[in-house]
Amino acid sequence: MASLKNLHEPNTNLGNALHTNFDVDYVIDYRFATTSKSQAVAQFTKLIEALSDAGLATEVRNGDNGAVLVFVKAASETRLRAEVYRSRVQDWLYGVRSAAPEKDMRKSLDEEPMTEAERLRIVHLLITKPKAERGAGITPKSGEWENVESIFALHDHKFNKEWIKDLGSKYLLNSEDLTKIRDRFGEKIAFYFAFLQSYFLFLTFPAGFGFCSWVILGQYSPWYAIINGLWCIFFVEYWKKQETDLAVEWGVRGVSRIQHKRPNFRHERVIKDPVTGEEIKFYPATKRLTRQLLQVPFAIFASLVLGSLIALCFSIEVFISEVYDGPFKSYLVFLPTVLLTLIMPISSTLLTGFASKLTDFENYETTDAHEAAMVSKIFVLNFITSYLPIFLTAFVYVPFAQIIVPYLDVLQVTVRPFAEDEKQMTAPKSEFQINPDRLKKQIIYFTVTAQIVNFGMEIAVPYLSRRFSRKVKEIKADRTTNNGASGDAADDHPEEAAFLARVRNEAELSVYDVTTDLREMVVQFGYLSLFSVIWPLTAVSFLINNWIELRGDALKIAVQTQRPVPWRADSIGPWLNALGFLSWLGSLTTAAIVYLFSGDGLGPDGNPRDIKGWGLLLTIFFSEHIYLGVQLGVRTALGKIDSPGLQRERAERFTIRRQYLQDSLGQEAAEEEKAAEGVTLAKQTIGRNILEEEARQSTLQGHGTPEERFWKRQQGPSETIAIGKMYIEKAASAATEAKESKKEL
Amino acid sequence: MASLKNLHEPNTNLGNALHTNFDVDYVIDYRFATTSKSQAVAQFTKLIEALSDAGLATEVRNGDNGAVLVFVKAASETRLRAEVYRSRVQDWLYGVRSAAPEKDMRKSLDEEPMTEAERLRIVHLLITKPKAERGAGITPKSGEWENVESIFALHDHKFNKEWIKDLGSKYLLNSEDLTKIRDRFGEKIAFYFAFLQSYFLFLTFPAGFGFCSWVILGQYSPWYAIINGLWCIFFVEYWKKQETDLAVEWGVRGVSRIQHKRPNFRHERVIKDPVTGEEIKFYPATKRLTRQLLQVPFAIFASLVLGSLIALCFSIEVFISEVYDGPFKSYLVFLPTVLLTLIMPISSTLLTGFASKLTDFENYETTDAHEAAMVSKIFVLNFITSYLPIFLTAFVYVPFAQIIVPYLDVLQVTVRPFAEDEKQMTAPKSEFQINPDRLKKQIIYFTVTAQIVNFGMEIAVPYLSRRFSRKVKEIKADRTTNNGASGDAADDHPEEAAFLARVRNEAELSVYDVTTDLREMVVQFGYLSLFSVIWPLTAVSFLINNWIELRGDALKIAVQTQRPVPWRADSIGPWLNALGFLSWLGSLTTAAIVYLFSGDGLGPDGNPRDIKGWGLLLTIFFSEHIYLGVQLGVRTALGKIDSPGLQRERAERFTIRRQYLQDSLGQEAAEEEKAAEGVTLAKQTIGRNILEEEARQSTLQGHGTPEERFWKRQQGPSETIAIGKMYIEKAASAATEAKESKKEL
Repeated sequence: MASLKNLHEPNTNLGNALHTNFDVDYVIDYRFATTSKSQAVAQFTKLIEALSDAGLATEVRNGDNGAVLVFVKAASETRLRAEVYRSRVQDWLYGVRSAAPEKDMRKSLDEEPMTEAERLRIVHLLITKPKAERGAGITPKSGEWENVESIFALHDHKFNKEWIKDLGSKYLLNSEDLTKIRDRFGEKIAFYFAFLQSYFLFLTFPAGFGFCSWVILGQYSPWYAIINGLWCIFFVEYWKKQETDLAVEWGVRGVSRIQHKRPNFRHERVIKDPVTGEEIKFYPATKRLTRQLLQVPFAIFASLVLGSLIALCFSIEVFISEVYDGPFKSYLVFLPTVLLTLIMPISSTLLTGFASKLTDFENYETTDAHEAAMVSKIFVLNFITSYLPIFLTAFVYVPFAQIIVPYLDVLQVTVRPFAEDEKQMTAPKSEFQINPDRLKKQIIYFTVTAQIVNFGMEIAVPYLSRRFSRKVKEIKADRTTNNGASGDAADDHPEEAAFLARVRNEAELSVYDVTTDLREMVVQFGYLSLFSVIWPLTAVSFLINNWIELRGDALKIAVQTQRPVPWRADSIGPWLNALGFLSWLGSLTTAAIVYLFSGDGLGPDGNPRDIKGWGLLLTIFFSEHIYLGVQLGVRTALGKIDSPGLQRERAERFTIRRQYLQDSLGQEAAEEEKAAEGVTLAKQTIGRNILEEEARQSTLQGHGTPEERFWKRQQGPSETIAIGKMYIEKAASAATEAKESKKEL
Repeated sequence: MASLKNLHEPNTNLGNALHTNFDVDYVIDYRFATTSKSQAVAQFTKLIEALSDAGLATEVRNGDNGAVLVFVKAASETRLRAEVYRSRVQDWLYGVRSAAPEKDMRKSLDEEPMTEAERLRIVHLLITKPKAERGAGITPKSGEWENVESIFALHDHKFNKEWIKDLGSKYLLNSEDLTKIRDRFGEKIAFYFAFLQSYFLFLTFPAGFGFCSWVILGQYSPWYAIINGLWCIFFVEYWKKQETDLAVEWGVRGVSRIQHKRPNFRHERVIKDPVTGEEIKFYPATKRLTRQLLQVPFAIFASLVLGSLIALCFSIEVFISEVYDGPFKSYLVFLPTVLLTLIMPISSTLLTGFASKLTDFENYETTDAHEAAMVSKIFVLNFITSYLPIFLTAFVYVPFAQIIVPYLDVLQVTVRPFAEDEKQMTAPKSEFQINPDRLKKQIIYFTVTAQIVNFGMEIAVPYLSRRFSRKVKEIKADRTTNNGASGDAADDHPEEAAFLARVRNEAELSVYDVTTDLREMVVQFGYLSLFSVIWPLTAVSFLINNWIELRGDALKIAVQTQRPVPWRADSIGPWLNALGFLSWLGSLTTAAIVYLFSGDGLGPDGNPRDIKGWGLLLTIFFSEHIYLGVQLGVRTALGKIDSPGLQRERAERFTIRRQYLQDSLGQEAAEEEKAAEGVTLAKQTIGRNILEEEARQSTLQGHGTPEERFWKRQQGPSETIAIGKMYIEKAASAATEAKESKKEL
């Protein structure tokens, strides 16, 4: 691992700058290079005014190249405390906290002091919330705040350093480590790490079993398929439970019900809420639905573009490797891969941009809804790019190769410049044999090579590029200083210089997006559930990869990105559905693959085209329904198991109830006890006539209502018992008499 | 409709007894005919003591034949109020109510007085709850309370009469009617009526469409199948939403989370709850799981018994109607139906009893869990008895008849006594033709005939049998009086005589079980979703049936059963899953039936055996997955629609939040306003050096921490603006200079 000192401190003079953040909550990076001077000044004035109106204190310093840095903290602790209190009351009303906060605000905040994550979250909300909700309404990079490049908190470098060191030195994260992450970076990121950790732990099983299976059972083993399917069910269901548990432990269960309004939401008109009487911004749901329907052509379009691209490159590759027999074959084989590697990221980026535009166009009211819509589109795109090549090989190439390959002659054009004669480019009609190893090779490529490449792209490339750009900057700065113009840093107060240099560096960093990392893991899980039966070592590769991945992601957060805003969350969000979907789809694909390839990889009869349609369908049908049945069973069983989180929730409820009842029933308790004591049974025998005399008397004298008289005939339980006894004895003797009289007859 | 007066008042002297219940909350029917006198007395004493200990007042009166009636009401209003309050606090803690009850108990109950249903529910709990939870622990018909035949509330005859009259005179129930039912009989029964009502309304569509389809499209129409499937999805999803809505409206949302302990639960040992420190009765979950596994052999056994019975009768019927050609054929055809009608109820009752024993054996801790386990078993039994015959016809008889029928010769034994020669009993090998109408006839039998018979069994038979038994009793009573022995009624106080006579009648009535009625409706829905494609008029028949059913059930509650305890519920419980299951299964069966029979009812090629396996499977596969996809879509779409219930919930939340924040933020508000006012912008230009002078001074003099100095350099937003402006202007001019100097170069 690269020395952390180097990563953090490209300038050696930062020294103790790493040890204080000067009480800064957030830094706003205001860039004005592209706007006119007067406009920049006007907008800047507006920015400071808006912040000040929202109760935030500001300090301004020079930034790098056409930027100033606005340092922000809460101006008054009282205001901040009121906001924190408000947020806690809201939590309680939405059922996130079991206990209502103390009605006395001061006392409540003294009893349960504000945490760092809470402070950062609330201050960030103050900066970004619309003015109507007592915020400053700053929306980076959009609308009137286009000049605001970013709003970021400052890293706690001391913590980061220790954290990375700590992660590097241990095999597994324990719950303390997760709590640490949660306290610093918020529950949303903590959930990612918790998921990664659970997934890593769970992977040990398919890794071990997969290895054994690879040694003993070979590929396409039905046993491996079954066990893997069960594992998928168990993992997904377990994670759901684990998620709830963590949410309770972290006090964020149900927090997703508290929705943040999206600043970019454009309302059509303002209506009065029929319920609360508040004015709310309204956008008709039907209109949104019409816009959402655009997702269908989008998905089709994306599938067609990416699909045909993949199919084309795939066909070229097949053609070259299986049909073509001319010179340069060993080089030409890589042609499609190169093509794909070049075109794919471009078209993928284009489509993602388009998806993002589409999501904006759908105009969601809350950030969560927006994010969920975006995630679903990203999932579709990733599904196509990640799995389609394998689907093509498994379900098109292998079963139908002998039909399709002859048609691939049209692709002669790709190799015509190299071929020596026509024969080299024509499929040998009779002896053509499909290459069953192609599938395995592809899986290995996606699960090993691609993972390594990916990791490199994620960690190494940004590091190098940042290094390079810093170098360029330094050279530039040197030149500027030589030119005699006063550099940005020259103005700095000596006491702050090191700190400001650090902040300027952090302002250059990109924003950490946890969904990207989650996506990566979900896609990885997909390979395992959908295709690992082809190559049982898949999980082994993932196990190793994920150990590094977790540490790499931590390093990314600590060093390569700005400090993330500690958002709360109560789950991994829409990715959970993606997991469930992939797990389910695995029950279909795995069954189909096993049916098609089991044995020697060429179908039940050794000939891939000789498979029975009904056999395949029946296999899939049973596999899917057994899957669904087992899933239901596992879900029910896991639902019944108690867990620390649920226990804690129960404990909280119990405490509150006891407290509440004690408070309110206190004065009643004395009376109640008295009433209960009244049962002293006088067990003497009392004649019924005497007992009911009083009641009869009152009847005769017309005292009381009939109801009162009814309830006064027997006074106290002892009388009831006595009279009941009489009835029973009488009835019993009557019965005996009746029997005897019958006998006599 | 039979005159209500007659039903209620077999004795004409009941007169005004119908107008008062003498403030009685519950009546306990204590029977001692089968126990010895001394034991009966001892047990009776214990009963009264237990009731009295639980704070209940008692009065005893003579019952019919070896029974006494113990009248129970809450002894002290204070005690009852405390219990009601406790229950409300619990509701609040479980999230059933949004607002916490007032901390002052008296005030809380004055503000929101106890309703009748609440009172009855709490008193019933007082009678039945274990002693440890401050109840009397009376468990009718079980354990030491075997003598307690039943615990029932008294009917409000005036209400009942008006209610039945009202229902008879209107076509549809509106929400007021449902609220009325809920106020009297509790949410659990109200949910049944609400379901029945929704179902009835929804049925109008398939009835109308089914009729058109019957006229235009004929049977086995794929169009009907698709529309019917969509309808099923929509109905089930709509009901789920409706259920939530009603639960909110009735203030019982989430009430199923409050679980009542089952009195018959047998614990293995007592452990301390790790959370609350309370002692709890513990029964190991693993042990229960082992016992639950017995359900598998039970289900198999039940399927085998009922299945083979049905299959046998079915085969006999096929044999007689299709093969046999001798005398008495037209009578013998009914033989299997008679057989089935005789044996089926017996074996069904036996199996239900066995299921009940099994559920008891599984030893659930809460009544809800117990009930859910029982419902699932009952559903399995009903599934077999209701649908298996049709499955056999559709998927065994029609496709495989030509293979199977010849083997039916073994059934010759059933008709041997009547046949004249062997030939009459042998299948005509070549010319045998299956009877495609058999399926339709069967459906008509199950959806029309059986419904009518069922209704008769439900309403008419109990009425007649009760009439008869009352007659017998009267004759007996006459004889007893003639014998000179004092009859039960002779002892009655004249003021109470009529009332007691009424109570004795009500004591004889059976207990109303809403699950039976729900089961009936769910099974009916099953015919619609699974098989209605065979005979599209199914829904028409159900529509008519259910109009009567609703009124019949009301009549049953009012007249034929004891007044039900007003239990709360927030849904129709486990039947909802059954509905979902049947709706889903419908997507499989309907697709299969359409594929097998479409056209002339004999498969795609006119020959039922000539169907393609893969075609059938593919049809089913697509049908199921389109079903699941549409279901997801409908669910999502419905989830987004606002509803009165959800609005109300929001409104309540909003009110509480506003109240709470006003209360606690009041004193802070003034200070906060002051802070916000501070932003008066002095827009004069200030030299930076002067501005920061103070801060620098303090640095030199060592005042304050570095943090304090950092935040003091610019005092107030106006200074920040001024300095920011300076930075921007400087940077802008520097950029211009740089450009110019470049130009110069």
